[in-house]
Parts: sequence; structure tokens; C-alpha cells
Amino acid sequence: MNDISTYVKNNKDIFLEELFNLLRIPSISALSEHKKDMIKCAEYWKELLLKAGTDKAEIYYTDGNPIVYAEKIINVKLPTILVYAHYDVMPIDPLELWNTNPFEPVIIDDKIYARGANDDKGQSFIHLKAFEFLVKTNQLPCNVKFMIEGEEEIGSTSLTKWCKQYKDMLNADIILVSDTSMIDKEIPSITTGLRGLAYWEVEVTGPNKDLHSGIFGGAVANPINMLAKIISNLIDEKGKITIPGFYDDVIIVSDEERQLMSKAPFNEENYKKAIGVKALFGEEGYTTYERTGIRPSLDVCGIWGGYTKEGTKTILPSKAYAKISVRLVPEQNHENILKLFKDYLENNTPPYVSVNVTPLHGGKSYACPINIPAYKAAEKAYYEVYGKQPIPVRSGGSIPIIANFEEILNLKSILMGFGLESDFIHSPNENFDLDQFFKGIETIINFYFYFAEINN
Amino acid sequence: MNDISTYVKNNKDIFLEELFNLLRIPSISALSEHKKDMIKCAEYWKELLLKAGTDKAEIYYTDGNPIVYAEKIINVKLPTILVYAHYDVMPIDPLELWNTNPFEPVIIDDKIYARGANDDKGQSFIHLKAFEFLVKTNQLPCNVKFMIEGEEEIGSTSLTKWCKQYKDMLNADIILVSDTSMIDKEIPSITTGLRGLAYWEVEVTGPNKDLHSGIFGGAVANPINMLAKIISNLIDEKGKITIPGFYDDVIIVSDEERQLMSKAPFNEENYKKAIGVKALFGEEGYTTYERTGIRPSLDVCGIWGGYTKEGTKTILPSKAYAKISVRLVPEQNHENILKLFKDYLENNTPPYVSVNVTPLHGGKSYACPINIPAYKAAEKAYYEVYGKQPIPVRSGGSIPIIANFEEILNLKSILMGFGLESDFIHSPNENFDLDQFFKGIETIINFYFYFAEINN
Repeated sequence: MNDISTYVKNNKDIFLEELFNLLRIPSISALSEHKKDMIKCAEYWKELLLKAGTDKAEIYYTDGNPIVYAEKIINVKLPTILVYAHYDVMPIDPLELWNTNPFEPVIIDDKIYARGANDDKGQSFIHLKAFEFLVKTNQLPCNVKFMIEGEEEIGSTSLTKWCKQYKDMLNADIILVSDTSMIDKEIPSITTGLRGLAYWEVEVTGPNKDLHSGIFGGAVANPINMLAKIISNLIDEKGKITIPGFYDDVIIVSDEERQLMSKAPFNEENYKKAIGVKALFGEEGYTTYERTGIRPSLDVCGIWGGYTKEGTKTILPSKAYAKISVRLVPEQNHENILKLFKDYLENNTPPYVSVNVTPLHGGKSYACPINIPAYKAAEKAYYEVYGKQPIPVRSGGSIPIIANFEEILNLKSILMGFGLESDFIHSPNENFDLDQFFKGIETIINFYFYFAEINN
Repeated sequence: MNDISTYVKNNKDIFLEELFNLLRIPSISALSEHKKDMIKCAEYWKELLLKAGTDKAEIYYTDGNPIVYAEKIINVKLPTILVYAHYDVMPIDPLELWNTNPFEPVIIDDKIYARGANDDKGQSFIHLKAFEFLVKTNQLPCNVKFMIEGEEEIGSTSLTKWCKQYKDMLNADIILVSDTSMIDKEIPSITTGLRGLAYWEVEVTGPNKDLHSGIFGGAVANPINMLAKIISNLIDEKGKITIPGFYDDVIIVSDEERQLMSKAPFNEENYKKAIGVKALFGEEGYTTYERTGIRPSLDVCGIWGGYTKEGTKTILPSKAYAKISVRLVPEQNHENILKLFKDYLENNTPPYVSVNVTPLHGGKSYACPINIPAYKAAEKAYYEVYGKQPIPVRSGGSIPIIANFEEILNLKSILMGFGLESDFIHSPNENFDLDQFFKGIETIINFYFYFAEINN
């Protein structure tokens, strides 16, 4: 396999040119104004997959954004890898914090800067190029299927339905995904757990119009003050979420497993420095990794209401809004948690205001055992490229569709991420390390060989 | 004085045309993009005042918005009325709630709809037209001075400085202002108290960038959650503001005066219905009028942070902001209250976040005794037009400059308002009742006569 690096070296420019064309499409799934960009992305992926050597590639139009499916079946007796990726990206605001245009990728200090550079356009390209290499050099050791969607950042609603419909077509041995991170450039890791997600919009209504804060202030409850009270009461001083019943279904992780988790390197000072905070805050009795890996959390992702522009406007506003995301762990169920939240609000909202909750999306948590063939193959593949045994880690993030795959397709997913914490995914100045990109291609090619070997 | 109504009737169209021209200028002082509109307003006022019959009218350019000064001195031995008004208006958002274009006045059901229709373009026009009538009919019984500013809605900073500079020129017996409301169309009232104001912007900073709410959620304090906690703690369950020392300088109003205040008609069901709330909330132990008239209050006028657009973005934001207004009563001092608030935040902000407070504006409260000549003249003027003795009321609103006038010019102000609660000032669909407009002109003309009479 020496020729991998030669192939990569010789084709580097075209790899990047193709990736940059994908990054230039502003495929923000949260904003309906980008509908056409989603179609553009799907069409481009179809073209790329055919060019890379799939037997066929199809676009499936849905009620939401299109799904691209492609496959290369070399021998039905060989194992099949189903690659999953997404072409949609997060919104770009606050735009003023970007140092470069988020949709005009540039390379600075050997990193690609663009929205989607890592998540997931950059990481998904690793699979395209690994597959292309195996096909072009006649080394493909197994069958390959690709499914690439455009709603990962907004809950994968269409893909979930589509999987149910095309269950037979998606028959495979493992789902292969690169949409996570490694601990560090020098410390490879494999994500063995993902938190689930519930995302709600809360609307608090007070008076039927904005009122003059002088004429009414003091006599009428202010919906922003009331929303603040609701939010403030959701987490207590020990970092515990106060919604009654919230922790009922949380699987308590064994002391033994917590012991193993504690082996992952963690430098609190560096962690704080990287994000610019003087102190950390979280659930009492748990380490930082545990707080994000095995415990649920609640964050207000956005809040707005009243006058928010320059200067002053003295009003007692009519409405206030918040977007709240809750990260869930096994076996919490997002629908049940929504119900608990609604009950909580109903019991705790005074008659001065009314509160309405709209669920925006939800997903289950996921756990991958470390003794399955795919995990073993991934372990060897990383070792080959990085020279180190990867550490199994539980990620705090969510890929709701992964839990759905397990339920619908009865397939485990192996999460081979090549992102780094410094990649700023979902933030301004998202980037992807070129070294990780090329090492990723090598690692995935190795995975194909080891996985085919173990399964034969 | 029978010819007042004839004059008004004959000149109605031109009155409205001139007022509409003023209303068409979008003179929003909070937004710097409207700088030119402020100048346009000042120039138009100068033209109107000269046309109405002042001896001279001048525009005084300042560091902020221009001030228009005009006068007509008929005899230095006669008393002098100094009319104060403002040509700046509040912002118009949320624009989608307006039924008509806020800067294209229209008359519907005998009400003028436009931003500024009442506050204060409509009410200030009452003075222009009352003065014009007295001049044109050779009945002006005293000297008149006008000062019209463009920063009332943002704190009157320039006018305060200007008054200090032109103290001698502004020599007068009383300041006459129409920038308040009556209890009801059938119940005239004179505002004898105004609350003071402190308006701050609070910025809470957590991490140095927006973080992924999955990867960091649960381990890092969220600045929106922290801001919510700060706001939530500012008012307790009994409606009391919790900032230590906040009530120290509040003058406790006597039981006798509270008894008098309680004579003002108040129908709680109608009040709640008008603003669309099921229940009222305010400081325990006080009536609604007392809560807005003689007690201080605290309202969040605006809040924002994180992702506030369509759909979802799973971030733990870097920053959260709130605009907070506090209404003050005699003898609370806004600078002192700011200091108390800063101390409070300093002592109550955990090390997870940092908090910064920017004062945006502040003003003192004001009280007008009901035994001064101007009050007596106003009482008679209202009685003449409305057939009822006006009730003295304390308003919850603030006109910070009124307290400054007292301090700098050593002059009391008489607040003869013609607005109604249904005028929606500071809100979408601001309007002004045409009947109130024309009755206002008559009342002010009467005031001139009675005031000159009492003072001679």
C-alpha cells in the first residue's frame, strides 16, 4: 500500500479543487433560502461519486433536502460497507467573526478555512478519495454503498423516512462515518458514544403588544424577565437539571468504565485557555469528560426579545424567545423529555404570561461496543497511520441519525473521525487540517483492508 | 374666544398637512443612520415657527442633534412661557405589527396613525397652532419662547448642556410641555410626577467563541443561562428589586397622598383586557397606579445572544446581552443606582463568566406641586374645554430633561398632556385622536390667558 501516499501526492491539487467546489456551495440547511444550494450539492455529489467509480449514483428527492445514494457491488459474497455523510452545513453567523469568507475556502498554515471544511464536507471527502484510490488501483476489497444527506444539522428527518423505505437496498455489514473528532493530532481516538438531542423553541407571551416601560413598568409582568426566570430555574447550583424525572432513564455508568475514561489525557488549564474561560462549571461529582460524555446537559443556544438594536428603546416587550438544546445520554428519550419539560413549564408558569414550546428536532443517543469487528479494524487502521492505539471516547455531540440507523437498519456505525478540537466546527473560522485530511484517506483505505480481512 | 373653534375649523386641512410633513420625516434618534432626518426636522421646525409668528427662530447645532429655539417677546414686563417639545421619535420595530407605514401618516376613524403622531410631534403641534392663533388674532397675552430638541428619547444630553450655556436666554416663568397623557377622553388630568430613568446594556461573556453545544455542553457555563440567572435574581417573588440599597433614597409617599391617588378611576378588568394579560404582577402592597407612579420598577427592554434565526444551531454561545431600564422615583439618583447595580453584579457574578455594564442614559424624577400658578391656570384651562376639574396624577414614564430644567433653569414645568392610553406610544400603530388634538389647541390657548391673568 505504499502507493497510497504517492497517489495522494500526485492528485493533491485535484482533490482540493473538487473539495473547494463543494465548499463554495452555501448549503445551510437551517435557512430555507438555501434550498437551491442543497440541490446543487446533491447534483455535485452524484457527479463526484460516478467519477470516483461507483456503478451507479442516484438523487432521491424528498420533502426536505435530496439524498444521494451510490454503490459499487463487486461481489455479493464480500462484506459491504455503507458510508454515511452529509453535505449540509451550519449557519455562518456571527459573520463578523470570520477572518475569511466562509464560502470561499482558502488554505492558511496548512489548514482549509471554510464553513463545512471539516463538518462534514471535508471529512466526507476522505471517503470519496479513499474509495476512488481503491477503485482506480483495483484494490477494492469489499462492496461499498454511499448515502449522503442534506439535513444532518436539522435532524435528518428525510433520511430517517428514506431508510425505512429503502431498507433492503441499504443492506450492509457496517455503517462507516467520519463526522467526529480525535482527541489530538498525536492521540487518535474512536468515538464510541454520542449524546442524543432535544431542541426546542420556547415562546413567552406577556401583554398583547410592546408597552411603554414607564407607563406600565412595575405593574405588568415582563416576558423577558419571566423567560429569564424559567431558564434560570432549569439548572441548579450543583449543575443539575431540575426538570422532574429528567434523570430517571439515565444509565449510570459503572465506576470501572469511568476509571477507563479517566485515562484520556486532559489538561484543565489548556482546556480553559483554549476557550478563554477562567473557571469551568458543570454537574457536581463529574469530570469534564464525564459531564460531556456520559451525563446530559442543557444549553440555551439563542435568546431574543424586545429591542435589540443600537441605543435605547424603553419598552416592556410583548414576547421573548429562547432556543434550548438538551443533550441526552442512554436511555433518555427525547420525546419523553419534551413531555417532562412541557409539564414542568405548565406547573411553573405564573398566570402573568403564557408559554409555548415548539420541538425543533430530537435524536437518540448511541453507544458502540469496542469488541465488534469494525471497531477492531478501525483500531488497526489508525495504528497503522498514527503509530498509536486509538482511545475509545464518548463524544458529547449528537448525530441523531446514527441511533436511527441502528433502529431501522439494525446496523452499528463505526465513527472514524479526523477532526480536531481546534477545527471550530459550528463556529466562525471552521477549518480542517490538511495533514488530517490526507492521513484520514490513508486510515480509511486501511480500514477497508482490515475490515474485509476480519470479515472473510 | 369663540373664534378659536372657527379658526381651527377653517385651518384644519393646513394644520394636518403641516403636521403630516413633520411625521413623514423618520427622525429616530436611537439610530445613527437617521442623522440627516434630525437636521431636516430642525429646519422644518424653524420654518414653521417663523411662519407661526415668532420674532426669530434659530437652529443650534450640537454634538448630538440640533435644537430649535424661537421667541416672541411682546413686553418684557409680561410673564414668559417657555414651551418645550421634541421632534425625535422612537424606533419602529417590530415593523410587521404596524397596520400602516409608520412614516406615512393616515387618518382612520378620526385618529392619525404614524410614529410620532402623539409622541411628540402631534402634541408639540398643539403648541405651534395655539401660538399661531394668538399671534394671528392679536391676542397673545404674554411672551413665548420655544425650545425643541431631538434627543428626548435618548436622554436629552445635548439640550442639558445647551440649557447651561443659554440659561439667561431661557429666562421664563414656567415651562409648558405636552408630552404626557390624560386618564381618559372624558377625564382630564395633569401629570404632577414623572419617574426617573436609568438604562443600561449588560454584556455577559463566557467562552471566547461560540462553542459546539454537544462537545462542550455540560462542562462550560453558558452566558445566556448566566444572564438569565442575573436577570431572574433582580426581582424577588414579592416584586421587590433585590439590588442592595436600591430603595434607600425612595421617598415614602404619605398615606394621605395615597388616599388621594386612589380616587383616580381604575378598572382592573379593563386594564388587563386592554393589554391582553390574565393577571397583573408588581410589588406587593401597592396598587397598579402606585406601582407605576410612586414606586420604582425594573424591566428588561431587550435581550439577545447566540443563534436567533430560523431553525436550529447547536451552540453554546460566547456572549449574551440585555438592555435593562429602571424607573426611579424621588429622591433616587440614577448614577448612584448604576453604582449599586455594578456592585451587585460584581458580588454575584461567578468566575465562569465576565459581565460588563454600559450606561446608555439616565434621568432624574420630577414632582410638580399643585398649588403653583401654572397648575391653577392649567386646571382652569382644562375645565373650560372638558367641563371637568382635571385630576393630578403621577405618571410612570420619564422625561429626564424635566428634572434637569428644574436644576439648571430653576423652573418648574407644567405637564399638560393630551395623549390617551390607547395611543400606543413607543409601540406599533402609534396614533393620536384628532379630537384631542383640536381640544388640546383650545386648552393651551386658555392656559395662556389664565396664566397671564394669574401672573399679572
